[in-house]
Amino acid sequence: MTDDARDGNRDESRTGPRPARDGHRAGRGTVTGEEEARRMHALVERLYPLCRSITGDGVRRTLEIIAESVRLRVREVPTGTRVLDWEVPREWNIRDAYVKDASGTRVIDFTASNLHVVGYSVPVSATMTLDELRGHLHTLPDQPGLIPYRTSYYAETWGFCLAHDTLEGLDAGPYEVVIDSTLSDGSLTYGEHVVPGRVAEEVLVSCHVCHPSLANDNLAGVAVALGLASRLAETDPWYTYRFLFAPGTIGAITWLARNRERTQRIKHGLVLACAGDRGPLTYKRSRRGDAEIDRAVRHVLRSSGREHGIVDFSPYGYDERQFCSPGFDLPVGSLTRTPYAGYPEYHTSADNPDFVSPEAMLETLETCWEVTRVLEGNRRYLNLSPYGEPQLGRRGLYGSLGGRSDTRQAQMAMLWVLNLSDGRHTLLDIAERSDLPFPAVADAAQALRGAGLLKECAL
Amino acid sequence: MTDDARDGNRDESRTGPRPARDGHRAGRGTVTGEEEARRMHALVERLYPLCRSITGDGVRRTLEIIAESVRLRVREVPTGTRVLDWEVPREWNIRDAYVKDASGTRVIDFTASNLHVVGYSVPVSATMTLDELRGHLHTLPDQPGLIPYRTSYYAETWGFCLAHDTLEGLDAGPYEVVIDSTLSDGSLTYGEHVVPGRVAEEVLVSCHVCHPSLANDNLAGVAVALGLASRLAETDPWYTYRFLFAPGTIGAITWLARNRERTQRIKHGLVLACAGDRGPLTYKRSRRGDAEIDRAVRHVLRSSGREHGIVDFSPYGYDERQFCSPGFDLPVGSLTRTPYAGYPEYHTSADNPDFVSPEAMLETLETCWEVTRVLEGNRRYLNLSPYGEPQLGRRGLYGSLGGRSDTRQAQMAMLWVLNLSDGRHTLLDIAERSDLPFPAVADAAQALRGAGLLKECAL
Amino acid sequence: MTDDARDGNRDESRTGPRPARDGHRAGRGTVTGEEEARRMHALVERLYPLCRSITGDGVRRTLEIIAESVRLRVREVPTGTRVLDWEVPREWNIRDAYVKDASGTRVIDFTASNLHVVGYSVPVSATMTLDELRGHLHTLPDQPGLIPYRTSYYAETWGFCLAHDTLEGLDAGPYEVVIDSTLSDGSLTYGEHVVPGRVAEEVLVSCHVCHPSLANDNLAGVAVALGLASRLAETDPWYTYRFLFAPGTIGAITWLARNRERTQRIKHGLVLACAGDRGPLTYKRSRRGDAEIDRAVRHVLRSSGREHGIVDFSPYGYDERQFCSPGFDLPVGSLTRTPYAGYPEYHTSADNPDFVSPEAMLETLETCWEVTRVLEGNRRYLNLSPYGEPQLGRRGLYGSLGGRSDTRQAQMAMLWVLNLSDGRHTLLDIAERSDLPFPAVADAAQALRGAGLLKECAL
Repeated sequence: MTDDARDGNRDESRTGPRPARDGHRAGRGTVTGEEEARRMHALVERLYPLCRSITGDGVRRTLEIIAESVRLRVREVPTGTRVLDWEVPREWNIRDAYVKDASGTRVIDFTASNLHVVGYSVPVSATMTLDELRGHLHTLPDQPGLIPYRTSYYAETWGFCLAHDTLEGLDAGPYEVVIDSTLSDGSLTYGEHVVPGRVAEEVLVSCHVCHPSLANDNLAGVAVALGLASRLAETDPWYTYRFLFAPGTIGAITWLARNRERTQRIKHGLVLACAGDRGPLTYKRSRRGDAEIDRAVRHVLRSSGREHGIVDFSPYGYDERQFCSPGFDLPVGSLTRTPYAGYPEYHTSADNPDFVSPEAMLETLETCWEVTRVLEGNRRYLNLSPYGEPQLGRRGLYGSLGGRSDTRQAQMAMLWVLNLSDGRHTLLDIAERSDLPFPAVADAAQALRGAGLLKECAL
Repeated sequence: MTDDARDGNRDESRTGPRPARDGHRAGRGTVTGEEEARRMHALVERLYPLCRSITGDGVRRTLEIIAESVRLRVREVPTGTRVLDWEVPREWNIRDAYVKDASGTRVIDFTASNLHVVGYSVPVSATMTLDELRGHLHTLPDQPGLIPYRTSYYAETWGFCLAHDTLEGLDAGPYEVVIDSTLSDGSLTYGEHVVPGRVAEEVLVSCHVCHPSLANDNLAGVAVALGLASRLAETDPWYTYRFLFAPGTIGAITWLARNRERTQRIKHGLVLACAGDRGPLTYKRSRRGDAEIDRAVRHVLRSSGREHGIVDFSPYGYDERQFCSPGFDLPVGSLTRTPYAGYPEYHTSADNPDFVSPEAMLETLETCWEVTRVLEGNRRYLNLSPYGEPQLGRRGLYGSLGGRSDTRQAQMAMLWVLNLSDGRHTLLDIAERSDLPFPAVADAAQALRGAGLLKECAL
Repeated sequence: MTDDARDGNRDESRTGPRPARDGHRAGRGTVTGEEEARRMHALVERLYPLCRSITGDGVRRTLEIIAESVRLRVREVPTGTRVLDWEVPREWNIRDAYVKDASGTRVIDFTASNLHVVGYSVPVSATMTLDELRGHLHTLPDQPGLIPYRTSYYAETWGFCLAHDTLEGLDAGPYEVVIDSTLSDGSLTYGEHVVPGRVAEEVLVSCHVCHPSLANDNLAGVAVALGLASRLAETDPWYTYRFLFAPGTIGAITWLARNRERTQRIKHGLVLACAGDRGPLTYKRSRRGDAEIDRAVRHVLRSSGREHGIVDFSPYGYDERQFCSPGFDLPVGSLTRTPYAGYPEYHTSADNPDFVSPEAMLETLETCWEVTRVLEGNRRYLNLSPYGEPQLGRRGLYGSLGGRSDTRQAQMAMLWVLNLSDGRHTLLDIAERSDLPFPAVADAAQALRGAGLLKECAL
């Protein structure tokens, strides 16, 4: 019900070795990287003005726009539904909000930036002096030109956020204070896009969609996820890929509550967030620390030569917190550029579309893509001629490589695959130990398999 | 017979989870650290003049003074008693000793410093020239102003120790040479102080009491041990704490010989020595290397910010040599400041009470205390709401922390405890992995347990 | 048939502990290191002019010279014999080769350097211009004064190698081009020398003998192997030592094909190559990475203070590629000085006897020798007095050491052996953990065993 029915009867294909294929090379089609980067940034700009929260029409409109480029199944979960240890909250919507001075000028104006209103603010309509209003105002004295982002989902209150410089310029009032919002029974909304694979085992790609006008956090993540979905659509993937666009925390918890059985199919996962700033890529390991996804991302980052950092799991950050809670303990890591709360623009009005770079998003996408190439192509083989080296020349395996510029790498990759294909090492193991890029190792395995020198083992 | 009878029937309480308690916060009472430091230094000064050796009245008098502050059970083990591979030696006592020149002046005088006589020197009364005497004189030519410390427990001989400068000033003699000592059947003396816990499992704290006028080696260790006993007396500890004040090597061997069965109760142990010099703290791991005591001390040292070093076990140093012999292989490490033989004052007359700092002893005591807080508070819990994060706000677990300055640390500690409490990780595991101080982790566990989110597992 | 019959019935001696012996001190006799270095270099000079290849009379003559100093069993394996995945190739021999200009001058002359002819060149007799010849000429433009070394074993062709400077000076021709070689059915030749031990378990020492006039690669390896055999001949070794002098790749494959069963007796092995250049020693680990040979070589290199590097296994280099193929996976590492292809003189005419240093070969030999001392002397003991330290003084184990300059090391070694001899640690384990040289640890074990404090365990 909450899922594609066609997934249900694909389990039988999971046994036995996988069919031969050049999975790690498929995809991409004819769209250039430049075009992909342009499209991602355009999406960030288009989604930016919407006032999203953990519920409400902002999320719905965001999912509608996402659904223009991928087949999206949108779910509505009613207020009050019990989800794990939580409950779906009331739905929040807002039409307008402002603080007007005596002259009728909006000194704080929701229509200028939706960050001006504390998320989940209850309705207000009152006149008050600055002193009375002050307890409801949030500023950043150390970044006086920026509007902070604040929410209060689970404590009923209201408030405004504004630049500290603006606050300093306000007179004593009185002010007309209006928040035209509703907080009432409704539903929580999330969307799922599935790229069907040959097996029911899934790769989960999750990004939160609950932040209002913040570009890097997390419209860039949404854009990169869609870019990845777009590339995968041109392949015939082994794994089924599930893209989850849900509000942070309560959205992930809701999805988990409704998919407890399904979580056992998740073999690998990535939480995408802060995917477009100009800082280096950062991978945060899953709770397990040495899951295949952890090793695949590390390998891709290391062999790419891209500047990057790798950090251990901690139970803070984005929805890896939920996926890696001990009851689920899913092999889900998190890929960001500058991590959670690690840049001064974080959760301020400075996290705008200019803060997000098309090139950075493309690099994040390329990294995600290469990770899927590793996951798709990872196999375990058995060397059928394990006593001494087989004579590769006789089989044309040296000659066939003669014209390529990467001959030596290809030859080393063949020797490594032969040497370590004892039924215990996967291609990723071999790539790690040999310090060769995964595609070179996978190509070598394919050539050797073609020559009858390798047999695939069940993973 | 060699033990408190009441320990015998406490074993039943060792099964099952331990009762809830805030063990890691108990103790200390009202004595200030400054007062503790003062008391420790005063004890070092009082014990300093006594002429201790591996047997004899100097040890007895030392134990009497120790017994003024704690309930001490003193044991006398007769000469000739077989102890493991050894035998209790004859008892040595000394009344006086000197070398007098022709004018009747004592050019070497035991009453000025008991280091002047080689420990276990047999009696002598003779007149001889400097040349005849020379073979019995020990000096430190490289530290010409200091008297060395020398013993000869197992080879019958006699000798004097003196400053090399003094030796240089001696004329040809003849000299009157007297050592008024006795070496005869008697006993070896050691003392034990037990702080009873709720279970029979023990923490052993051992320090040698066989050195004459040497302050850091090991009166500072004795003083710190008594400071720790004093703090523990104000708690209701889980473990039974056994403090052993015994001569080095033969004393530890004697205790082990008489307590072979009991050693199985020792869950953790520390040998305290050189506890008062101004060098950084040094922990030497047990033979096992990764025993809980090893990890607890490392955690305390790291999270304290105190300058320190950690070194691997080696079969040399103090009585960890005996406790960590392969037949016993007890989880006993050694805490010192500058380690064994690592400072120029070591085993010389420069190791006097001025060499020992009250502040350094207090820091060593504080470290020992914090280690006991980890041992006492270490538990393994099971998260009862392991699917996703439980909603802490609803349970007041965020709010309750709002007023504290360490809110963020407390919140992170709760998230870590929830995430890792899968029945496999102890609180010490969690403190290590999260890099949070153990007390923060233990406090978080207590709060979560209070909210019904954790259940204790058997360790 | 392919082996010494007397090895066959020695297997029974492999069970149970080994007899006591001071294996790690035996050997050397009266020959000085200087004399050994001189002899090794003289052998390199004598073997240097021979035109070796993977088959043919150059290898036969080389083995005859080797057989002057050790008992060598020479094997001839006919062309066409199936060996693992390969086949023994036709035999190649060459009498003369040259390129003569119009004046009759040999501008390229095989008799001046056998590197001038591509190995396995088919016969040629023709007149051609420089342009026609050029496709058959090999030079090193970046090292214009040097002749490169080239072969073409498995593709029928012919060619000449020459200095690039020489090529630059050649006129347009025509030239008389002659290679007076034969490529016809014959056999592949290799030699084995066995130093019988007390047990049938073997240590394999292998070096390739297929390179023509290249001194470091691998005449230095041959010379060091013979130096080691010579030292071992003066001992009564525990292990049987097998020295293999065979052509690279196909020779090792041939030996493995004919000794598949025997490979199970190989407990340790070293491939010796590039053993005489002036670079630091380099050990390349076996595929297993932590085999006893890997640990023994590491220990010897570390405790020797010699400059050295240790690198992980890779399936490239010398015949460790074959011995470490996954079907065999033998514990065989490779000892070189500068590794495979790591110096500019590699595979050029600059790898001549001057490139090889007598002192470097002696250091390599000394390293090999010390490694055999570890392998021979490695044992596992049980401390028979494991509760506390045994009283060493009573047994004269302190006194007996009094006169030696390394007293403290000897005493520490005894304490370490006692502490770790719990039936789980070998002497090599103890040497590694204590950071003491293996001979000190082995001496201590012997002294303690003599005093009845240790019992040997089966390894």
